[in-house]
Amino acid sequence: MALIDDMRKGSRLALSRVLTLVENASPTGQAALNQLFPYTGKAHKIGITGPPGSGKSTLVNKLAHQLRLNEPAAKVAIIAVDPTSPFTGGAILGDRVRMLALQNDPMVFIRSMASRGALGGLATATQALSQVFDAAGYDYILIETVGAGQSEVDIVNLAHTTIVVDVPGLGDDIQSIKAGILEIADILVVNKADHPGADQSTRYLRSMIRMGHRTSSPSYGKHALKEWQEPEPKENEPEKELEPDWLPPVMKTIATDGTGIMEVVEKIQNHRSWLEKTGNWEKKDAFILREVVKKMVTASLVSKFEAEVPEDEIERLLSDVNRRKVSPSEAATQLVAYNRTGINPHLSE
Amino acid sequence: MALIDDMRKGSRLALSRVLTLVENASPTGQAALNQLFPYTGKAHKIGITGPPGSGKSTLVNKLAHQLRLNEPAAKVAIIAVDPTSPFTGGAILGDRVRMLALQNDPMVFIRSMASRGALGGLATATQALSQVFDAAGYDYILIETVGAGQSEVDIVNLAHTTIVVDVPGLGDDIQSIKAGILEIADILVVNKADHPGADQSTRYLRSMIRMGHRTSSPSYGKHALKEWQEPEPKENEPEKELEPDWLPPVMKTIATDGTGIMEVVEKIQNHRSWLEKTGNWEKKDAFILREVVKKMVTASLVSKFEAEVPEDEIERLLSDVNRRKVSPSEAATQLVAYNRTGINPHLSE
Repeated sequence: MALIDDMRKGSRLALSRVLTLVENASPTGQAALNQLFPYTGKAHKIGITGPPGSGKSTLVNKLAHQLRLNEPAAKVAIIAVDPTSPFTGGAILGDRVRMLALQNDPMVFIRSMASRGALGGLATATQALSQVFDAAGYDYILIETVGAGQSEVDIVNLAHTTIVVDVPGLGDDIQSIKAGILEIADILVVNKADHPGADQSTRYLRSMIRMGHRTSSPSYGKHALKEWQEPEPKENEPEKELEPDWLPPVMKTIATDGTGIMEVVEKIQNHRSWLEKTGNWEKKDAFILREVVKKMVTASLVSKFEAEVPEDEIERLLSDVNRRKVSPSEAATQLVAYNRTGINPHLSE
Repeated sequence: MALIDDMRKGSRLALSRVLTLVENASPTGQAALNQLFPYTGKAHKIGITGPPGSGKSTLVNKLAHQLRLNEPAAKVAIIAVDPTSPFTGGAILGDRVRMLALQNDPMVFIRSMASRGALGGLATATQALSQVFDAAGYDYILIETVGAGQSEVDIVNLAHTTIVVDVPGLGDDIQSIKAGILEIADILVVNKADHPGADQSTRYLRSMIRMGHRTSSPSYGKHALKEWQEPEPKENEPEKELEPDWLPPVMKTIATDGTGIMEVVEKIQNHRSWLEKTGNWEKKDAFILREVVKKMVTASLVSKFEAEVPEDEIERLLSDVNRRKVSPSEAATQLVAYNRTGINPHLSE
């Protein structure tokens, strides 16, 4: 495919076309993904999530800008995912406020996804797009998504490093949402740190991390946190060379004026070093690919089912379900049996 | 199953046990669901969603209380779903603030789900629990969930009537999130209406609904809205008897002191009447059951795949994927072919 070659040589037009093919989940798009897959596995994927109003977009722009300042040879991609905005074009709005400095930088590529109708779901589409950027030689891929629900957690699970952005003082009730999202955070950012309540939010997040450490819940398995207050090493005792765990830092920023951005970029680099040193880079990569294969297997099984079981058979069973004659589980069992044996249990009664 | 009989006779203890069996997705739970399915289809399921801090819990409590005042014979269930709180017990916190009046009411049953690990996903578990309440004779089932992402949209899609709760003045950025969630709203509530910006939020939501009407996007198919400003009927012209569409009303409430609650309950009843009159009640029921069967078919296909394809074969292919020798899509194709033919394409090379 000539398009892939052009893309690999740096053509932005070719890249843009491949992204569109892949986002539309066309057969050509899948062929392109297969062809470019050998070139993937190098990019540092960074997920940024947080509630609406937390200033994520500005933060992402500033991080991209800082990464470019630090590494003039690095290419940076931004994927902005807004699953909540199907018809007002929230993503377009997001684009409009992207810094001009980024838009004129030939080493930066910004891609927005507003469509909720992405085939196979937004997480699948985001993963596919990040593979394209990866193969196109982008060193950093920033994935920005509105954070709250499970689907956003799925999206950030595609990343090596996940940044959760918070904002001071949205009321008491909001603190319940932070707890769940904390679990996925490698770096926590309290943005708008000049607003009242920033110190309180920072303290709160730090105490939540400490609580997370103390809980023995097996669901809290991603970060096996070390003691918040490490005991001072005794004098003359050689420092232990244990593999350190990653303790998510809580950082304060004011994205609009750039305060704290450099420090966050430093933590991103620290996290990458930690991932590489501990073998977690490879583990994360294998985890992401396993999820991709799993989703594809599921999609394939379902599409074969749909192609093989006659629609009127499905409709007949569903109408029995609607009349409460057959339970949903019995209907599903019959349909799957039909798909696998070719024998229609409904007719053989 | 004696438990089902006891539950149908009104035993709260039996109900509680069945809910637990079903939530844990045990085989007994599935058997119970099959047995109680014929008794379902009567309850009015009402989804309530909105951002954290919008006062959803208080609103839900007040709605339940008002429903009970209006209909002393009605039974009301509350299912509180918090997918974001796996380890701090957000749901337990939610319980703590439930009104005492509700807790002492034998016609009210409150059930919280905090666990993200619900087998088959939270939407599946919520659907199953609401079937239990339905079969147990509950007339109203209020399903409360944190709203923002796709998974919450899935949860409210289980409801006949969806209420989206908003709160005044969370900044400009938040307005992008409202757009997507608007699409699922049958009733919009601006809670904390005594806060500054309530009128502005109300106007904004009304204008969004108008925009939604004007867009020709096919994704906006759920509510075919009529003109916001209807032309005045000409004098002497007989009123047309066309089936009216449902125009989502925007209501203001102060849940903490009860302001506007009665009016929201009235809109809920209006929506129900509209659903019944237009045949949308049956359509919605059929849609929900179709989704349930679809999910069960998918789960069954995947579990058979996992039981039939040897794990070491999966691992061998995944390791080829990790080394970029085989693309995820090629791996998935091979695994599905193996599952369906029993022929190992990897060995036959």
